[in-house]
Amino acid sequence: AIDGARLLGRIRRLGTVGALPGGGVCRLALGDADRAGRDLLVRWMEELGLAVSVDAIGNIWGIRAGREDGPPVMLGSHIDSVATGGLYDGALGVLAGLEVCAALDDAGRVTRRPLAVAAFTNEEGARFAPDMMGSGVHQGALDLEEMLAVVGIDGAVLGAELDRIGYRGAVPVRSLTPAAFLELHVEQGPVLEREGLRIGAVTGVQGISWTEFTLHGQSNHAGTTPMAMRRDAGCAAARIALEARAIADDLGPPQVATVGVTELSPGLVNVVPERAKLTVDLRNTDDAVLKAAEARLMAAAEAHAAAEGCRLESRRLARFAPVEFDAALVARVEAAAAARGLPARRMPSGAGHDAQMFAPNCPTAMIFVPSAGGISHNIAEHTGADDLVAGAGVLLDVALELLEA
Amino acid sequence: AIDGARLLGRIRRLGTVGALPGGGVCRLALGDADRAGRDLLVRWMEELGLAVSVDAIGNIWGIRAGREDGPPVMLGSHIDSVATGGLYDGALGVLAGLEVCAALDDAGRVTRRPLAVAAFTNEEGARFAPDMMGSGVHQGALDLEEMLAVVGIDGAVLGAELDRIGYRGAVPVRSLTPAAFLELHVEQGPVLEREGLRIGAVTGVQGISWTEFTLHGQSNHAGTTPMAMRRDAGCAAARIALEARAIADDLGPPQVATVGVTELSPGLVNVVPERAKLTVDLRNTDDAVLKAAEARLMAAAEAHAAAEGCRLESRRLARFAPVEFDAALVARVEAAAAARGLPARRMPSGAGHDAQMFAPNCPTAMIFVPSAGGISHNIAEHTGADDLVAGAGVLLDVALELLEA
Ligand SMILES: NC(=O)NCCC(=O)O
Ligand SMILES: NC(=O)NCCC(=O)O
Repeated sequence: AIDGARLLGRIRRLGTVGALPGGGVCRLALGDADRAGRDLLVRWMEELGLAVSVDAIGNIWGIRAGREDGPPVMLGSHIDSVATGGLYDGALGVLAGLEVCAALDDAGRVTRRPLAVAAFTNEEGARFAPDMMGSGVHQGALDLEEMLAVVGIDGAVLGAELDRIGYRGAVPVRSLTPAAFLELHVEQGPVLEREGLRIGAVTGVQGISWTEFTLHGQSNHAGTTPMAMRRDAGCAAARIALEARAIADDLGPPQVATVGVTELSPGLVNVVPERAKLTVDLRNTDDAVLKAAEARLMAAAEAHAAAEGCRLESRRLARFAPVEFDAALVARVEAAAAARGLPARRMPSGAGHDAQMFAPNCPTAMIFVPSAGGISHNIAEHTGADDLVAGAGVLLDVALELLEA
Repeated sequence: AIDGARLLGRIRRLGTVGALPGGGVCRLALGDADRAGRDLLVRWMEELGLAVSVDAIGNIWGIRAGREDGPPVMLGSHIDSVATGGLYDGALGVLAGLEVCAALDDAGRVTRRPLAVAAFTNEEGARFAPDMMGSGVHQGALDLEEMLAVVGIDGAVLGAELDRIGYRGAVPVRSLTPAAFLELHVEQGPVLEREGLRIGAVTGVQGISWTEFTLHGQSNHAGTTPMAMRRDAGCAAARIALEARAIADDLGPPQVATVGVTELSPGLVNVVPERAKLTVDLRNTDDAVLKAAEARLMAAAEAHAAAEGCRLESRRLARFAPVEFDAALVARVEAAAAARGLPARRMPSGAGHDAQMFAPNCPTAMIFVPSAGGISHNIAEHTGADDLVAGAGVLLDVALELLEA
């Protein structure tokens, strides 16, 4: 059985690594706080007697041996965060995996299959794009060499940062396909809380499209330059940002659109900006609609840049098609929740998750627990202790079935 | 007579201080390059035998004695720049002042009144708002203690930076009202070039209004947060930016509006921004129209913030009413140009200038020379050598009249 105090203790302890003054954490991928979190995780894995591996993109997993050899059942998520992250996003899935190991140890239980608990590099994609990078490379959807060369928002190169923090491991990527993959995660949205449910049986993940636009105009004097002579990169960027919002408004749910980054250069009060950078994050469960949204955005970006006399550059930062999880495994999640007296809701995930990179290669599913107020990627992210423990219990039950199957 | 080679040599030499790789300079006020430029200027003043003073806000002036005591005729401008500044903005007026001294020395000429050449602190306002700070404090329009406490875009405090670079002088501010003030400057706009003229007789400066808006929303997950639940500070900021553009478009020339700064926090691709900062620079020659523009902007900012569920903060960074220069002195500039065979155009200034801070207190005027392509606050800012020398010639002629009057 799950030891709630032990699970919560580990979540709180990991939450002290990269802790922010007002609460929450900043453990941007491959920064110093991420390293400290990794060190703590590896120590915990070793204390639990797991055999720890680190692969060439810095993914960490620990294996608890089974009665038989063969591919393990893997429970995994991530411990990196956005710059204003909560305590549960990612950490819950990894630490609940450790708690499953500990609970099996408590019961003196040796399972048929081996059990692996994994933490994947840079799931957030906040410092280095794309997101789900470690799991993507692990499962062959992303190219290792390309990812090692990615330049972060602070100019750092991913491979060099892996070396710097000592987590460029010796194990080759794509070396392991688990027998099945399970991820417990906070919902990060409002649905479960609104419906008064404790467990979500996640059916899949919506498609994700990230584009970075750079506009090149002409810097000039704010007081002397007639409006008609301006090539204002910032103005074109604002128009593209509002087009993104209009796309989401026009298409309606589940389409979402977010401009998280806008940077002007030189960025001075009395200088018409010569350069502007913005990112647009578009998501939809329906890939055809997502493609239409992307096309409309690109056409609008070109038109607004041209109207302002700016040159437009665009760069795809991430593109993942919608993913469906294994129907049988989703049903098992539902059944396990029901067996604990917890009605579950089938729902797609709005956020990207490491699980989606495993879905094409092995039976995969996810378990959601509620996020208070639907808030995530915010230091106020919160999930009640009972919900956390309930989710870990369902994870344990489904994992056990898979471990003995 | 003006020695063109000597004037151009000093401009080029000062242009090596804070030089940028692609051309132009970055001498943001009170930074290391500004200090180096000040050191060079003081050396040149001393070589010309001027008596150098530095006041409590860091303004520098050098005085060439006259036959009589009494208030000097002052020729001044600034040597600070924006981050992507040209070689002529400000530097021309100061170095042409030195050239007038040198020309008088060449001729062995002692004038009736003393001649002062001045460089004022932080005319640009790019690092520390407001602009025209040194001349404003010098002439009593801005409060010294308030200005010493201003925090710059990099978090530095103005008074501490003055101390750091060694230019918090002993001379009290408001210690000198000149007999007259003259400033030679590049136009920074397209008018003179378009009309094929070499000299502008500046009639005044349009009103300047700078406002900083900060929007406080809620950071949240880009994938999971339904559009209807968002409080996206960046989206509200984009709407305010486009409202500023619409105000300028609707009012028509001479109204201009510029959003030079837009900053999102945390500024990550998959996080709805919780905070956005933007600046709006509004200008008009007619203060009533400028006030109407300000009122429309503020009302729109409040409405857009409210519609997005964001809290709005606003802060006035600068506000200067339109200024008219001395009609008799403007006529002298025109006459001096005509006497050199240079038809001059009467025109208002789109940019703010140190001269405007003197206009309420003594006869004041300005001389403009053309800016190639109307480009300024850009490293490509350029004015032809003949134009620079012609402008300095008119400055010399008008200064001589005033020095003997
Ligand atoms: N779960 C989660 O927050 N993933 C980050 C990737 C994304 O969905 O933007
Ligand atoms: N001349 C000039 O560029 N002044 C800077 C102040 C402003 O007009 O923005």
